[in-house]
Amino acid sequence: MSLSMYEASIPVFVRMLGNLSTILAKAQANAEARSIEPKVFIEARLAPDMFPLARQVQIASDTAKGCAARLAGVEVPSYPDTESSFAELQERIAKTVEFVQGIQAAQLEGSETRIVTLKMRTGDLTFPGQAYLLHFALPNLYFHVTTAYAILRHNGVDVGKMDFLGGV
Amino acid sequence: MSLSMYEASIPVFVRMLGNLSTILAKAQANAEARSIEPKVFIEARLAPDMFPLARQVQIASDTAKGCAARLAGVEVPSYPDTESSFAELQERIAKTVEFVQGIQAAQLEGSETRIVTLKMRTGDLTFPGQAYLLHFALPNLYFHVTTAYAILRHNGVDVGKMDFLGGV
Repeated sequence: MSLSMYEASIPVFVRMLGNLSTILAKAQANAEARSIEPKVFIEARLAPDMFPLARQVQIASDTAKGCAARLAGVEVPSYPDTESSFAELQERIAKTVEFVQGIQAAQLEGSETRIVTLKMRTGDLTFPGQAYLLHFALPNLYFHVTTAYAILRHNGVDVGKMDFLGGV
Repeated sequence: MSLSMYEASIPVFVRMLGNLSTILAKAQANAEARSIEPKVFIEARLAPDMFPLARQVQIASDTAKGCAARLAGVEVPSYPDTESSFAELQERIAKTVEFVQGIQAAQLEGSETRIVTLKMRTGDLTFPGQAYLLHFALPNLYFHVTTAYAILRHNGVDVGKMDFLGGV
């Protein structure tokens, strides 16, 4: 059975969103144990001009749902980016996973060459589906999940590499 | 043309190692411009019990060369992990790219099901090649390149998302 666009996207997204959920649950428990206001973590940044934790989670969600939808040729669901608590971030992840899991392998057949256009501030970006998945969506997803992890590690949350990789 | 193990690995590794090289070059220039001793960046960490920048680069290299070699069924080249300057880190990246680029598409044919065994401190980890690539090697590579980026951003180096993604 050869590698498919489906295997390289949907199960990867589901797994990494699940790992992000685990990491956030550990952060919430850590905040409670150390009597730290949850917003301290949710608004934490690694640099003044980097996004805070909540935005990292929202962009990880956007990357996964956007890629799954575009490769399948269906409309990208729009979420309002209003999450400001761990419970709301967990809901955001859960609804993203639900959407992504709803995409079937048959919908991604031939998506290697499906043309994907992204509207960026700097203009349109156009890719064949395979380049979009491998060189844009996956690096972006991993970038934002890793940055969420790094923000929390920097703030003393006891997460480890196995939480990031999940179930190895 | 359907997605292949080669396309999902070798060009991704080469691209991300190239982006890591660009990010380190910007860090070196930034250190010079701000009269900061390069070791300050090279030894910087996001948490006391996380690896410093140099080790992040070494592990990114290890992940790429290890995955390329194991999927191809050839010996993993061993590098001594002695880099302590930007020039040495750039050499490490360059020799990794050279090794990875030497792996041909034909060597990865059928590697979806090739059994890969990793010797970990906690015991052996065994995967079919596809799961090893998608759920272990790629997340690890992105984790360490993102963490290198985050260490530098946290230290005020003017790198941006486009440096991380490379040539989008």
